[in-house]
Amino acid sequence: MTARFIVLEGVEGTGKSTHAAYLADWLAKQGRPAVTAREPGGTPLGERLRALLLDPGISPMPPQAEVLLMFAARSASISEVILPALESGAWVVCDRFVESSYAYQAYGRGVPIEHVRALDRQIVGKLRPDLTMILDAPPEVGLARKAGPGKRDRFEQESLKFFERVREGYLHRAEAGADRCIVVDASRELAEVRKDLVAAVSQFLEEKAVHDG
Amino acid sequence: MTARFIVLEGVEGTGKSTHAAYLADWLAKQGRPAVTAREPGGTPLGERLRALLLDPGISPMPPQAEVLLMFAARSASISEVILPALESGAWVVCDRFVESSYAYQAYGRGVPIEHVRALDRQIVGKLRPDLTMILDAPPEVGLARKAGPGKRDRFEQESLKFFERVREGYLHRAEAGADRCIVVDASRELAEVRKDLVAAVSQFLEEKAVHDG
Repeated sequence: MTARFIVLEGVEGTGKSTHAAYLADWLAKQGRPAVTAREPGGTPLGERLRALLLDPGISPMPPQAEVLLMFAARSASISEVILPALESGAWVVCDRFVESSYAYQAYGRGVPIEHVRALDRQIVGKLRPDLTMILDAPPEVGLARKAGPGKRDRFEQESLKFFERVREGYLHRAEAGADRCIVVDASRELAEVRKDLVAAVSQFLEEKAVHDG
Repeated sequence: MTARFIVLEGVEGTGKSTHAAYLADWLAKQGRPAVTAREPGGTPLGERLRALLLDPGISPMPPQAEVLLMFAARSASISEVILPALESGAWVVCDRFVESSYAYQAYGRGVPIEHVRALDRQIVGKLRPDLTMILDAPPEVGLARKAGPGKRDRFEQESLKFFERVREGYLHRAEAGADRCIVVDASRELAEVRKDLVAAVSQFLEEKAVHDG
């Protein structure tokens, strides 16, 4: 059975990393070894770029630079983590992928969407996720979950208006038929959301059963 | 008189930074305040990216990521250093600019030249140098000048073959009519090279004299 490439997307505080870890674990229990990846990050270059991208001290960060750094981290993640995992037969569950660049840098920051599209073609090319699940919730819900005594990173310091544009960006992309995107209501309890994610992923396993059956 | 944007290009050890500092100083003496810039670097973001780009510990660095990081640093340099200087009436003398991306990442690393061109349009756009001086010398000459007890950076560790491709890239670009490029023989004594650079830059000052005269 083909290894699958699954992506979780959404604004801050929608539970992406928690759900990604849970799904990888759940897949392993179904006998499908899965690798988790995160963006930006997950490689030596990616983690250095992540630190730089989240650092509130790097100000101003030109939006055009931000989108290039995101794709640079993605390029390393693709060649060092995602492709080797898929080629070895492991599934990949990724905490953010290319839809983040459309939502945050194009819709959120105002980078022309055709620039994001050009980078998408250039860096991601034919590698498309089998399923992208957009964890959707009003930004104030996610940000409240993230609120804590710690220092906010450069993105968390953004205004509510910024995250509203990002959320709208995700919804537009899903509506406009961005490939294999589904929207999941993430304002509910974690366990409820999890049930939907598992159900969506399970379909791939059922397909397998049909094919193999 | 319009402020001018002058760029020095060339492989390692051809004297770019020394000549850039000299030219800025020489211009100031002619009553033309000049700002020096360097790539990658010269801004908080750029210097962080420079450290990352030169770090031999970041390995592998996908060529596609390298070119994105170079343009990200360039984007910050343009908006924070080059444009403000030109708008204030100061001249800019830049140690490397967009021709480095053609020479190093396209010719040297094999990134498709149309990817570099797309980034050039997207990030640099209409801002073209008034003059790009390519300091040309056989790579072994430059590398011998750079050789010292210090640790070599990620680029200096490259093979002679790599730098030969980069040098050819520069020469191709100049031949193919890349805008306002001249090639200067940098295998000669520093003082000889300097004389040519000053002569080329002086032409802008003479134009001024004619216009004002």
